[in-house]
Amino acid sequence: MFRIVSAVAFALSPVLSPTIAQDSAPSLTAKQAETVDGLIDAGLEDDIAWELLESLTTEIGPRLGGSEAEARAREWGVARLKSLGFRNVRIETFEMPYWSRISDSAEIVSPFSQPLTVTALGQSIATPPEGVSGEIARFETLPELVAAPLEGFEGKIIFVDEMMARTQDGSGYGVAVAKRTLAGAEAGKRGAVAALIRSAGTSGNRFAHTGKGVRGLGESAVPIAALANADADQVARALERADEPVVIRLKISVETRSATMSGNVIGEIPGKTDEIILVGGHLDSWDLGTGAVDDGVGVAITAAAAKLVGDLPGRPQRTIRVIMWGAEEVGLLGANAYAEKYADDLENHAVASESDFGAGRVYRFDTRFGEENLPKGAVMAGALRRLSIAPGHNQAFGGPDVTPLRARGVPVVSLSQSGWDYFDLHHTADDTIDKIDPEAVRQNVAAWAAFIYMASEMEGDFR
Amino acid sequence: MFRIVSAVAFALSPVLSPTIAQDSAPSLTAKQAETVDGLIDAGLEDDIAWELLESLTTEIGPRLGGSEAEARAREWGVARLKSLGFRNVRIETFEMPYWSRISDSAEIVSPFSQPLTVTALGQSIATPPEGVSGEIARFETLPELVAAPLEGFEGKIIFVDEMMARTQDGSGYGVAVAKRTLAGAEAGKRGAVAALIRSAGTSGNRFAHTGKGVRGLGESAVPIAALANADADQVARALERADEPVVIRLKISVETRSATMSGNVIGEIPGKTDEIILVGGHLDSWDLGTGAVDDGVGVAITAAAAKLVGDLPGRPQRTIRVIMWGAEEVGLLGANAYAEKYADDLENHAVASESDFGAGRVYRFDTRFGEENLPKGAVMAGALRRLSIAPGHNQAFGGPDVTPLRARGVPVVSLSQSGWDYFDLHHTADDTIDKIDPEAVRQNVAAWAAFIYMASEMEGDFR
Repeated sequence: MFRIVSAVAFALSPVLSPTIAQDSAPSLTAKQAETVDGLIDAGLEDDIAWELLESLTTEIGPRLGGSEAEARAREWGVARLKSLGFRNVRIETFEMPYWSRISDSAEIVSPFSQPLTVTALGQSIATPPEGVSGEIARFETLPELVAAPLEGFEGKIIFVDEMMARTQDGSGYGVAVAKRTLAGAEAGKRGAVAALIRSAGTSGNRFAHTGKGVRGLGESAVPIAALANADADQVARALERADEPVVIRLKISVETRSATMSGNVIGEIPGKTDEIILVGGHLDSWDLGTGAVDDGVGVAITAAAAKLVGDLPGRPQRTIRVIMWGAEEVGLLGANAYAEKYADDLENHAVASESDFGAGRVYRFDTRFGEENLPKGAVMAGALRRLSIAPGHNQAFGGPDVTPLRARGVPVVSLSQSGWDYFDLHHTADDTIDKIDPEAVRQNVAAWAAFIYMASEMEGDFR
Repeated sequence: MFRIVSAVAFALSPVLSPTIAQDSAPSLTAKQAETVDGLIDAGLEDDIAWELLESLTTEIGPRLGGSEAEARAREWGVARLKSLGFRNVRIETFEMPYWSRISDSAEIVSPFSQPLTVTALGQSIATPPEGVSGEIARFETLPELVAAPLEGFEGKIIFVDEMMARTQDGSGYGVAVAKRTLAGAEAGKRGAVAALIRSAGTSGNRFAHTGKGVRGLGESAVPIAALANADADQVARALERADEPVVIRLKISVETRSATMSGNVIGEIPGKTDEIILVGGHLDSWDLGTGAVDDGVGVAITAAAAKLVGDLPGRPQRTIRVIMWGAEEVGLLGANAYAEKYADDLENHAVASESDFGAGRVYRFDTRFGEENLPKGAVMAGALRRLSIAPGHNQAFGGPDVTPLRARGVPVVSLSQSGWDYFDLHHTADDTIDKIDPEAVRQNVAAWAAFIYMASEMEGDFR
């Protein structure tokens, strides 16, 4: 997941109360209700999502946006969607700038000489081969750095030691992303030679969390890297214990190219109409782990769920479009390319959603529907109750890759997952399949299959 | 900790039953019992051990045997022992061969190209700069490899995928060490170009566990490295999924020197006699973590406990010698140097023990005393009961660095700690202070202080 933009800032009371549904027109027919239950039963026994997840994370592994590995992942996606029976399977390519890590390291030079666990942030510029060294200037928070004078930090390394809060809904991440994307520019303004941040992540193990280090698509103002939480602690302790400046050396080597190819992989279950239910996950990952929770499992859940709906007799009412988004982590590039390509067709997008918050169970169903269509959301939420999913609010985020669609008025939903431990793994080398509970994946598949089916069959729209 | 040699193979019923003590002569005087309780009270409020641990792991960090960092750690030890009031503080140096890691990496070359998390094992020879590549030949266990023919593996990379068992008493480690120290020789015999093992460790996070890779002090027969558990899983899955050989490339660069200096740091609380109670932990660590659980905490616990005893009014009956062992991980070199230097003085060593099993609570008190002195062990165990420490057996290991002393007849004890999660951190980059519970450290300090005092004051010997 690249960023949670706005929805997480809300703390809304549930508005999708099922009582609304009882008083209002929309409801499922008996046959539809039976089909939903059958899909949930099938989802709870699904093995396809796990097979997709294991295949992607084993046979491709890390797949940085724009890399050769991501290209292999697209071929994988095409082959898998075809073999699952999807139609109109295709890659929609787009061009993008390329950045990749070659190597990164950091060490305390003095007084307590020792290596530190660090990772360069995405889009960081390189250091000279010998690295950059500087006295550490520590800030407790990003706002403290922003408020600091512009003079007095020349030649230093600015260190933003802000801790990320662990929350169920991932709401600690917004603050952490601000630190990650702004610290480099703030350091550059002050003539610092580099920026270090405490990782935007909650891992209690010694992993540094990477992620995009700048706003927009440019390069960072200074070399920027994230320390593992344990190493941020270590630097803070060193500053307390030293009776002289603490000097750190940072080395970053990167490869950049002005243009490379990426693409979105698409497959469809053609419906009776050309209205589209758009679901998916993003195919790219950061380079450190194998992209299991971020976002192999989202790709796997949505494809497996759509396949269950595709296996039903007859055509769905609407077309179900599964998309494996390209180059999400590095700036929602696949999302923007899609929104541009389909700019004139967005009216046909009935509802969109992405699974991109790991492999935790879905605990709440949120929508962003027009007021008059809220009862439909309540019907959907009601049908998901047997999966221990509660009705939610009507300010759904929908997932990072549907952000450009949401901004253009496409209704979205969120099958909100527990994110309590998601940021322990997020953007680290530790993002591997062994962390994932197959039963939780099945619960997700069941929920998505039920949602996709209901979204496809309900009359009228969600706007 | 370097190895658990023999004691862990036993599963003995407790022999230190307190009822023995009641029927036999030895017991504590009322004043001694009061002193023991006072030491336990003081231990449970101790902050010295934590300060030592934090200082060592922050101000020195990793301190490989024979390295410049270990030399700095010795200076640290001298300064700290002096400031805590120990007497006869000194470094007893010895010469040793030097091996250190420069860099290590591994990747699947084909068919599923991707990096793997790996660490070179101690004493591994280097690969050529471009690395060595070979088809993987996987063995489920070390015995399977040992039983395999000598032909048919030329040019391959032998992979021993044996899983380490998680146990309270660390007994899974013996089997894991056999794999770690023998796989290289077995691979070499068969003309393989390298050996890989599943880490000798239980981490469920993506850390490779290093450790000594050969028996004895020589270099390995072939380059040898350990994969993180997640990466061993990945290689096993790749072998299942590939329809062609899985080829891996391993690169290891090392520095070796025929001789460097190390040393044991010693401080004493002089007693009324020259009999010695020898306690300590090892000062060196592997290079990946900061050596918090292995074995900064053992150094800290024993020094803090001895200091509490030293703070009592008057001299102890016996001399309490605290030792910070050098170069334990790389082959018990400090232990052997000590046993040689004091070969003619071992009769004066009343009892010895090392704290080198992490920072878990002590749950059992084991001895290796002469039969007629078992009642003294029972008295000690009885006094530790309020710390939830049970009486144990009489086959105590005593700790790796007292092995040469134990072999020469010096009585030893073990304050046996829970090792359930010790091997999650052991020899990994994740061995850092944040994993340690200060309350468990205090329980250790209390137990060690009580033991040291009782061992010092009891009449007769423990042989």
